[in-house]
Amino acid sequence: MSYEANVRKVIPYTPGEQPEGKVIKLNTNECPYPPSPKVEKALKAMDTDTLRKYPDPLCGGLVSAIALYYGLEKENVFVGVGSDDVLSMCFLTFFNAAKPILFPDITYSFYDVWAEVYRIPFRTVPLREDFTLDPEDYMTENGGIVIANPNAPTGILESPYVIEDIIKANPDSMVIVDEAYIDFGGATVLPLIKKYENLVVVRTMSKSRAMAGMRVGYVFGNPKAIKYLNDVKYSVNSYTMNTPSLIAGIAAMEDDAYFEEITGKVIATREWVKKELKSLGFFFGDSKTNFIFAGHEGTRPGESRAAFAERIFLSLKERNIYVRYFKKPRIDGYLRISMGTDEEMRVLLDILKELI
Amino acid sequence: MSYEANVRKVIPYTPGEQPEGKVIKLNTNECPYPPSPKVEKALKAMDTDTLRKYPDPLCGGLVSAIALYYGLEKENVFVGVGSDDVLSMCFLTFFNAAKPILFPDITYSFYDVWAEVYRIPFRTVPLREDFTLDPEDYMTENGGIVIANPNAPTGILESPYVIEDIIKANPDSMVIVDEAYIDFGGATVLPLIKKYENLVVVRTMSKSRAMAGMRVGYVFGNPKAIKYLNDVKYSVNSYTMNTPSLIAGIAAMEDDAYFEEITGKVIATREWVKKELKSLGFFFGDSKTNFIFAGHEGTRPGESRAAFAERIFLSLKERNIYVRYFKKPRIDGYLRISMGTDEEMRVLLDILKELI
Repeated sequence: MSYEANVRKVIPYTPGEQPEGKVIKLNTNECPYPPSPKVEKALKAMDTDTLRKYPDPLCGGLVSAIALYYGLEKENVFVGVGSDDVLSMCFLTFFNAAKPILFPDITYSFYDVWAEVYRIPFRTVPLREDFTLDPEDYMTENGGIVIANPNAPTGILESPYVIEDIIKANPDSMVIVDEAYIDFGGATVLPLIKKYENLVVVRTMSKSRAMAGMRVGYVFGNPKAIKYLNDVKYSVNSYTMNTPSLIAGIAAMEDDAYFEEITGKVIATREWVKKELKSLGFFFGDSKTNFIFAGHEGTRPGESRAAFAERIFLSLKERNIYVRYFKKPRIDGYLRISMGTDEEMRVLLDILKELI
Repeated sequence: MSYEANVRKVIPYTPGEQPEGKVIKLNTNECPYPPSPKVEKALKAMDTDTLRKYPDPLCGGLVSAIALYYGLEKENVFVGVGSDDVLSMCFLTFFNAAKPILFPDITYSFYDVWAEVYRIPFRTVPLREDFTLDPEDYMTENGGIVIANPNAPTGILESPYVIEDIIKANPDSMVIVDEAYIDFGGATVLPLIKKYENLVVVRTMSKSRAMAGMRVGYVFGNPKAIKYLNDVKYSVNSYTMNTPSLIAGIAAMEDDAYFEEITGKVIATREWVKKELKSLGFFFGDSKTNFIFAGHEGTRPGESRAAFAERIFLSLKERNIYVRYFKKPRIDGYLRISMGTDEEMRVLLDILKELI
């Protein structure tokens, strides 16, 4: 025996690589543009002396700025250290049934990690062959449901009506809708928080507001659900958001014009890259995110889709271009390619031409 | 039934108030001096454009800076969002036995909150009448042990030999020693991490490095224990530390001279305030922290210690001086007074004279 007998042993999530130096980084769905100039201004104006004091545990200013932007009340908003932190809090708060929680077999690969670390029983539900979701699969007993919409890594958006059917059919389960990528052209289920108390909607400033390095995520829900989340948060860490993240988060919410500009640019790049990839023989669903999940038939004698994808992944890496490759059943024939600047995507497309 | 049946219902920790405006704030053990000028310089020099990218999930630079300062290896160091975050991670990682974990009845009031939120069985062990700890009380079956040394809110420091006896007697339990306040004149058990694998030592930059608003905490332990912690961290949130906190944390570690200067000033203030409080009739243990936990007999006819303490707490608040009062058995006759600047403490002492 030793202390190790009582250790919570887990298989952790593996984040995408964060390589140093001059690379084209298309592997973690970051924004290719910097944060709003208002964020820079606010951070430069921050009085460093105030750091001696604890930040506002209620995150009042940031919560208000988010509520105001979306036309909601402060009581509808919970904030945390990126969408990973707020999703983790949602799992810990809402998923305490003996019945298994449900989520798609192909989705954000952190869901089963949170289920494991918090000892939550879970069952994955296979998506259809084309990676779309069958709402009927969620009309069964469960301890909770989590759905990424648009989904990652597939990029596919489900209609809000499909999601609503699932919420409506499960009044005894909390349904977490993870809208990390909704700002790139998707239709949100956010208005439904006024209609269903068993719905929370998760967002992040990491992608569409170009602040992955600042770690700001948020949740919308009815006031009671938000109160439950805050109670658990105050039972884990009273001050999760540091002073710079509160300041930067407010500034980011206040620059709507810049937000519209950069998300518009990413969407335009995506639509152009779709055409280019198609002409190179790639196939993919209709991504509504800041990435494209693309497959391709093998181009060498006897080369499978998976062998092709892995070869391209490694060859790109040798040339300092990072994309994401998941060596997992059903998706090992695909590459998840984040949208960079048009210049970066031009370089990628030229090299892909060469490698095919 | 509703989704609420599956909610984790908890009674959260109550942090000290963070009042706005012109107040003398002696209620949350913050540092009265600003962070190192090197922190300010580093933050002003931060390239805001880099915020579009995720921070280093390994926190490599910060971990190295901390390891270097303490003459340890990177593998001995784990970092997180304040000592609350790293303590929470320690509870989740190391306290998974069916037997109860042990901690003193009077200590940091977050310990039982973490035990509750993570469903960890626990038993509190009464301190002696003078708030010192009897190591014999911990020579019994348990699922883990957590000890704050110096203790909060009492301020009392136990000898490292007392703590070592407890570690030695419990090879099958992880012993967490919470040294949040060790930099104000206490003797650390840090060297013991090379001798005992069932020991982790927790520290924070919130108090002695004047960075409560930045949220940086860290843990020392043997490489295997640190690996277990990182595995759980990567199962909750890959990127807990945002870019500014990594930058500020490194700068703070690199300014030893400033650290020595401000902790020296706080210690000098504390020793002076002890004398003054004693002359006003207060009694207290020999604090080795940045606060004094002081009691006093009632000064009005029939006034109990508790009634006196609560009256002073409220009267000070009316005059915009915030100290901490815990309305709990055994400690409701005391005020926890953080050390401010000498000027602030002068104002406090003058008003106390008046109120008594």
